Amino acid sequence: MLEPVDHVVTFSCPVPIRDYPQVLLAHGGGGKLMHQLIDKMFMSSFSRLSFEDCHDSAVLPVFSGRMAFTTDSYVVHPLIFPGGDIGTLAVNGTVNDLAMAGARPLYLSLSFILEEGLPMETLWRITQSIKRAADAAGVTIATGDTKVVDKGKGDGMFITTAGIGVVEYDGEISPGRVRPGDAVILNGDLARHGMAIMAVREGLEFESSIESDTAPLSDIVQTLLKEKVRVHCLRDLTRGGLSSALNEIASAAHVSIELEESRIPVREDVAAACEMLGLDPFYVANEGRFVAFVEAQDAQRCLDVLRGHPLGAQAQWIGICVARPEGVVTLKNKIGATRILDMLSGDQLPRIC
Amino acid sequence: MLEPVDHVVTFSCPVPIRDYPQVLLAHGGGGKLMHQLIDKMFMSSFSRLSFEDCHDSAVLPVFSGRMAFTTDSYVVHPLIFPGGDIGTLAVNGTVNDLAMAGARPLYLSLSFILEEGLPMETLWRITQSIKRAADAAGVTIATGDTKVVDKGKGDGMFITTAGIGVVEYDGEISPGRVRPGDAVILNGDLARHGMAIMAVREGLEFESSIESDTAPLSDIVQTLLKEKVRVHCLRDLTRGGLSSALNEIASAAHVSIELEESRIPVREDVAAACEMLGLDPFYVANEGRFVAFVEAQDAQRCLDVLRGHPLGAQAQWIGICVARPEGVVTLKNKIGATRILDMLSGDQLPRIC
Repeated sequence: MLEPVDHVVTFSCPVPIRDYPQVLLAHGGGGKLMHQLIDKMFMSSFSRLSFEDCHDSAVLPVFSGRMAFTTDSYVVHPLIFPGGDIGTLAVNGTVNDLAMAGARPLYLSLSFILEEGLPMETLWRITQSIKRAADAAGVTIATGDTKVVDKGKGDGMFITTAGIGVVEYDGEISPGRVRPGDAVILNGDLARHGMAIMAVREGLEFESSIESDTAPLSDIVQTLLKEKVRVHCLRDLTRGGLSSALNEIASAAHVSIELEESRIPVREDVAAACEMLGLDPFYVANEGRFVAFVEAQDAQRCLDVLRGHPLGAQAQWIGICVARPEGVVTLKNKIGATRILDMLSGDQLPRIC
Repeated sequence: MLEPVDHVVTFSCPVPIRDYPQVLLAHGGGGKLMHQLIDKMFMSSFSRLSFEDCHDSAVLPVFSGRMAFTTDSYVVHPLIFPGGDIGTLAVNGTVNDLAMAGARPLYLSLSFILEEGLPMETLWRITQSIKRAADAAGVTIATGDTKVVDKGKGDGMFITTAGIGVVEYDGEISPGRVRPGDAVILNGDLARHGMAIMAVREGLEFESSIESDTAPLSDIVQTLLKEKVRVHCLRDLTRGGLSSALNEIASAAHVSIELEESRIPVREDVAAACEMLGLDPFYVANEGRFVAFVEAQDAQRCLDVLRGHPLGAQAQWIGICVARPEGVVTLKNKIGATRILDMLSGDQLPRIC
């Protein structure tokens, strides 16, 4: 059996899987081919999944503290893009949802919906990405499932992960705790994930320079909590971007959020790409960015802690919460004019994650 | 907000969702339409999901004991069939995977991948099925996600559920505990789920009489464990049917399993339908059937307990485990001849669950 080596991308999947260059319906049918796929493709990558002791559920030790539980499906198109692939997203996205509840991620489930005809090498490559991302985030892939649908009834591959984490932080982290006076702090520059995807889709020239910002945010958040920064709410800036996330929180917390555009970092090449495609970077998806709502007195300490972490080097204090008008997000631009950042009706970029 | 009433199927979805007769890509885009869908469709059905306190993860109390964790994707075609729909399966299937680990199911996650153009009434109807199935199984839908893919890149709807349960039983339930001498006990007749699906697909005459056996097995299993029947292993008989499940266990436990065909109940109309389509009922999927491997001395008590439960009225002692030949399942037929029940190479019935 092939033992994938950490940090070395193994581009070839093991025999006898490679005898089937494409996924067949039978790979999802519960018979020998499915067991072969699970055994050679997934068991060899995720040591927790043990075929010999194969069972319908993973049985895990219970921990003390509260438990966080979350799920996301990933339907990103294309499957592979600069800076990552659907597998990286499926791990980091769910890890980040746990992190935003103040939880330390422990276990992930991993469920594939494969389209008949998917190249087996693509599945192998993405499985290896999942392994590397899980190792980097310190989570265990504890259980999984594989289904295959007929050609033309899917789109290569969809992945659904669910995650379990432990909340060791004593306080509550939720939109309901956000108060007028809270500082709004962002951990880095915006819009890279969305523009990396769009560059591939549109075949644009700037393709090579913009990579997705996908990253696991659990470590930087745990650092913040260990340093006793009084965090009221955390939110990652995925579908709908900064603007949608802040609108959700302003609405749930019955506050107004005032942002200053000059404090919000957007890389020059990313801004140029957004302009070329007529997209607003404040609505474009990110996969490694979050905002923290913290007590104003802790804002500077929050910035210092974030800036000391590789995923927060460019952290900025981008705005504050005020009492009125409730549920509104405003943006003061570089020449001092203020506009409302509304929530989009539909989506700017379909299938971004 | 519409309050769905238990046991009454609410066939109409609430405004403003019904202003959109079909799912649009924008319903998955992170903007207003997505929030409307989540709020009016899902929040109104699943009380645990609270939009006002909307958060990336559900934060749940930790329980004592061991934790079981499982996931499955559901891609059944057609979405609605006699006796159930994809929503019923998505709850019962994951509940049953937890039950097979001896766990009492507590929480489910629920993730939809919708195809643009799906009739909104179909989504509403299936959401209500999920609510009823979750209530019947006593599980809480704790967290969820919705994605939409372009028309022609999905097939109406795929659902992925993950489940968390608590194992309160002291013993270990796993294939590794199966020993020569163990009795193999089945809780009811075979092949109804698979044939219910095939009847619809093939438009056969017997359509009206065969309904899926989909059911939550957690209560019957918990009853068995509370009665202190010494259970070594449990397995539900889904994809690949009885034959694949027993082959997996024979192989993992290094035993041989000897079955007697005359003791295995198959309804007459189901057997006739199988014959008409050239299918072997021992390979056809079930959604409410399981086998228990128990100590031989406890076999009669196991039967008595199962037969006292609505989901075990037809329970039968169908076979025994012996030492050799390892990993083999044999079937003695009604005239005394013995054949090997092998694992299928591919699948008999694609997209059965």
